[in-house]
Amino acid sequence: MPTILGQNQYGKAENRVVKITRDGDTHHIKDLNVSVALSGDMEEVHYSGSNANVLPTDTTKNTVFAFAKEHGIESAEQFGIHLARHFVTSQEPIKRARIRVEEYTWERIETSDNNSRFIGSDEVKHSFVRKGQEVRTSQITFDGENWEVISGMKDLTVMNSTNSEFWGYVKDKYTTLQEAYDRILATTVQAAWRFNWTSDEQRMPNWERSYAEAKKHLLQAFAETYSLSLQQTLYQMGSRVINSRSEIDEVRLSLPNKHHFLVDLEPFGLKNDNEVYFAADRPYGLIEGTVLRDGVEARIPVDHTNL
Amino acid sequence: MPTILGQNQYGKAENRVVKITRDGDTHHIKDLNVSVALSGDMEEVHYSGSNANVLPTDTTKNTVFAFAKEHGIESAEQFGIHLARHFVTSQEPIKRARIRVEEYTWERIETSDNNSRFIGSDEVKHSFVRKGQEVRTSQITFDGENWEVISGMKDLTVMNSTNSEFWGYVKDKYTTLQEAYDRILATTVQAAWRFNWTSDEQRMPNWERSYAEAKKHLLQAFAETYSLSLQQTLYQMGSRVINSRSEIDEVRLSLPNKHHFLVDLEPFGLKNDNEVYFAADRPYGLIEGTVLRDGVEARIPVDHTNL
Amino acid sequence: MPTILGQNQYGKAENRVVKITRDGDTHHIKDLNVSVALSGDMEEVHYSGSNANVLPTDTTKNTVFAFAKEHGIESAEQFGIHLARHFVTSQEPIKRARIRVEEYTWERIETSDNNSRFIGSDEVKHSFVRKGQEVRTSQITFDGENWEVISGMKDLTVMNSTNSEFWGYVKDKYTTLQEAYDRILATTVQAAWRFNWTSDEQRMPNWERSYAEAKKHLLQAFAETYSLSLQQTLYQMGSRVINSRSEIDEVRLSLPNKHHFLVDLEPFGLKNDNEVYFAADRPYGLIEGTVLRDGVEARIPVDHTNL
Amino acid sequence: MPTILGQNQYGKAENRVVKITRDGDTHHIKDLNVSVALSGDMEEVHYSGSNANVLPTDTTKNTVFAFAKEHGIESAEQFGIHLARHFVTSQEPIKRARIRVEEYTWERIETSDNNSRFIGSDEVKHSFVRKGQEVRTSQITFDGENWEVISGMKDLTVMNSTNSEFWGYVKDKYTTLQEAYDRILATTVQAAWRFNWTSDEQRMPNWERSYAEAKKHLLQAFAETYSLSLQQTLYQMGSRVINSRSEIDEVRLSLPNKHHFLVDLEPFGLKNDNEVYFAADRPYGLIEGTVLRDGVEARIPVDHTNL
Repeated sequence: MPTILGQNQYGKAENRVVKITRDGDTHHIKDLNVSVALSGDMEEVHYSGSNANVLPTDTTKNTVFAFAKEHGIESAEQFGIHLARHFVTSQEPIKRARIRVEEYTWERIETSDNNSRFIGSDEVKHSFVRKGQEVRTSQITFDGENWEVISGMKDLTVMNSTNSEFWGYVKDKYTTLQEAYDRILATTVQAAWRFNWTSDEQRMPNWERSYAEAKKHLLQAFAETYSLSLQQTLYQMGSRVINSRSEIDEVRLSLPNKHHFLVDLEPFGLKNDNEVYFAADRPYGLIEGTVLRDGVEARIPVDHTNL
Repeated sequence: MPTILGQNQYGKAENRVVKITRDGDTHHIKDLNVSVALSGDMEEVHYSGSNANVLPTDTTKNTVFAFAKEHGIESAEQFGIHLARHFVTSQEPIKRARIRVEEYTWERIETSDNNSRFIGSDEVKHSFVRKGQEVRTSQITFDGENWEVISGMKDLTVMNSTNSEFWGYVKDKYTTLQEAYDRILATTVQAAWRFNWTSDEQRMPNWERSYAEAKKHLLQAFAETYSLSLQQTLYQMGSRVINSRSEIDEVRLSLPNKHHFLVDLEPFGLKNDNEVYFAADRPYGLIEGTVLRDGVEARIPVDHTNL
Repeated sequence: MPTILGQNQYGKAENRVVKITRDGDTHHIKDLNVSVALSGDMEEVHYSGSNANVLPTDTTKNTVFAFAKEHGIESAEQFGIHLARHFVTSQEPIKRARIRVEEYTWERIETSDNNSRFIGSDEVKHSFVRKGQEVRTSQITFDGENWEVISGMKDLTVMNSTNSEFWGYVKDKYTTLQEAYDRILATTVQAAWRFNWTSDEQRMPNWERSYAEAKKHLLQAFAETYSLSLQQTLYQMGSRVINSRSEIDEVRLSLPNKHHFLVDLEPFGLKNDNEVYFAADRPYGLIEGTVLRDGVEARIPVDHTNL
Repeated sequence: MPTILGQNQYGKAENRVVKITRDGDTHHIKDLNVSVALSGDMEEVHYSGSNANVLPTDTTKNTVFAFAKEHGIESAEQFGIHLARHFVTSQEPIKRARIRVEEYTWERIETSDNNSRFIGSDEVKHSFVRKGQEVRTSQITFDGENWEVISGMKDLTVMNSTNSEFWGYVKDKYTTLQEAYDRILATTVQAAWRFNWTSDEQRMPNWERSYAEAKKHLLQAFAETYSLSLQQTLYQMGSRVINSRSEIDEVRLSLPNKHHFLVDLEPFGLKNDNEVYFAADRPYGLIEGTVLRDGVEARIPVDHTNL
């Protein structure tokens, strides 16, 4: 047979696990979507259909739910580390495990002051509303020796209503764009950042704090950059994270330029002084780039996705 | 020809208008998705294709953008009122206008303290991040005489991690469900409420404040109800809005029961003490109902949608 | 309590049932998404949380799957009739049942001629590919006495690349649209049609044949109408179905005008002779209307949806 | 500044271009979604915001539409080759262009025999309905010297209702799955295949014929494989394409195992003899793998996406 098997992986994708932790009457939620991908000595199942080396995807699903009980969910990253270590160390044919996690954040519902009738206390501690802003992501890979942790986010939409220009670009025979000296700059941030924690010997980062800080720096860099191009803003955002967070060595950003076109109101005898915009869907500019700590090698793939 | 024309309407749907208002350096955003539906003397265009009575959908789009400049966007409801009045009063063949609006909410990005380098002030006042929680909706209908305003929301996901039971139900030969005395109750709220403001003679409600209060009451009623069924919670939610807001006479709620199934961990020798849940997608219970101020007639359709 | 309960309904939505029927080696698929909505004497569960009249949504789900075995799935409509009759006649408090069905169509995979190695016959009779064109829909409602059946489709995208004009319309101060004498007309058909079968006394329509014929007539009317407006095309489509199918009395169509804008190529020294178009997403014209057999009363709601 | 720029690219994504070609009265459609990504000497725009090397994304959009006129759209691949060559050869700072295309297929509407009234001929030759089955994809990359063309598809859903087993797998302490000797095997095919055409010196493949044949072989291999695991089916599918098509050297497949669970009807006194299934959404098994012509190096990334 003149064909051979190349890279392959398998597992159960999108296991929706919700963990409630009770601290007296006060409850806490972790709400994750966990995908398992395993690889190793899997030639035989592809060539002959023999499942002798195959831990069923159903078992990987069971493991996700069982581990939520056995280890709890301190953070998405820590949970992924437990899972990846388990698959690689407990099954001989499995040489590599990649765990991807989406996390959905909840906040408490503020309740009314005088509602003791039903719940016998002056505060409801088990009621939540989903924040719904960005989706937090992480990917944990383990090969039995080294760890790679890439965290990030998607669906975070931001806008500057001024302090953005775009001019001085190349003009060829297909160029019709007018230069802009005050435009809206809006994007939906998809970001992935890689930690320099790679070994059990190293001190593990505080994953929760690291995420909160990375998000803050991305937002602030976006807000505080006077932008001459979205590429410049992208670089400032990635650079700010690396400069502020010593545990992060590489940031990959994918920033669609969500165009807000100034509407021409002249036909109606009106002047549009940067007030009324049409928010377009497609097409959109798409600006993608990696920012690296100097001296570090890039490892996040060009089309890094999370689920 | 033995067929005749029944109800019909037309217009431009999903006009994505963004309005920036400048209060010195401080900017404000209104971000709307506006759909126009007009009806009236439109037999001829259906029967013969004569467009003599047809204001083009393209013109209705232009009007949305021009009105954002001419009238500003104080609230989605007020903006819809301007538009509906215009179409019905300015075009003789148009007898009725229905304006639907989705609104997306933004909040300011908090910036770092010491960043005067780029922007020459100690605060960034033109940078926003989309909140991304619920989508706010409204529908304004005008027939030249009477107004109907239905506001609401969609995509607001809430959860109580306790204080929910379900037992004492009918059991037939197809019933296998076990009774539950402590379960998760989660839903994604789709709500529509109708105002009793119907005429220009009446004092207009404060639409922004009304929305904020209605949302607060829906959330609190959800949180504070010890639930024996999602129907009971639905009624409490609708009832709380009407009892608290005199400007609202009718509430329609559509509440999918987002099932969180307790995972059976016994095969793994583990006890699941209401800790680990599987969040299921489909199928889901769907509980829908109208709550009315006593004496009032229902007008919100069973399958009310917004866009 | 100054509030009362209005219209309400509940049930399990989106039960994804797949039925395989074996005719020797030849298999047949029915692939449905079934939603149950029940109403009746349900005040108490809303007011007090007593579930004494509530057949659980979980039971309605079980019934869907059990009925696929007990009655088979001859057609979506016939299956819905079995379910609706069951709920209304078997549970005293349930006065009305509405069953909604989405159906996904499959076709056989044509296999190679000489592949007897694996399957021991000269044709594979159990292999299918999803057609993926339109989704077929139906809604069956029963109140213990009368039936209402509304069938239809969604997601069927069609285009005429000529034979469409738009001119002679109203021009007001916000009108900038140029008249068009040869344009693309494209839409995604959402259609619902109501049968005049309402009682067990009447002879039941052939649901499968009726659907195939209604789809054919909608497509042909779209293709064969020289269009002066999308409203005219809509009326021709609805009218053709009613004139051709005596079992159908009412058709409701919702037709988004999927704009294809001629791209201005003049800046590049090129002439665009109705060749190159930009397919826009939003906004879009939305043309909706009902066509009725003369003398018949309309019953399909303005915003008829299926799921 | 201790950070540096890594891989980066930019361009206009999702240009929706529709091209109508007229062969007398007979029209033909090409309906594409084209995304441009350029890279090269772009450090400066990231570091300082200077756009001196930046061809605007708006210009790349204009080029897509202009080229549809100038070169026509013979195939998605040929169109992408024109575009990629143009960007790399016409702009000195651009060293590499990647064009991605989604293609939507249309078929003619069959019209009625006797409809000469409106259109003056016995056949409508300008009316189309979107097929809606799979989306065809391609990615063309050019660095000024070498070409890489990866074509494929997504959203093609297939099912075998028998001839699939799964047993003999590893069982650990988290395994509860029962072995299956006759199950449904269903998946939604996402496939990408790489051509060995890499230089203008070589004879170019017939892209349209190659696609049709690759699709046919994927479908037939799926249908004709008696499956002991989805991995085995995946390998057969990829292998069949390479063995049948000499122009293709590598195939990457991503196959979600769309679980169809046999419903337990015993509680209702019914036997489920592989007849009634619940089609589940999440979680799902995800089986991914590359099949290579022997001796060839893999180049399609693990997470190859198209848009």
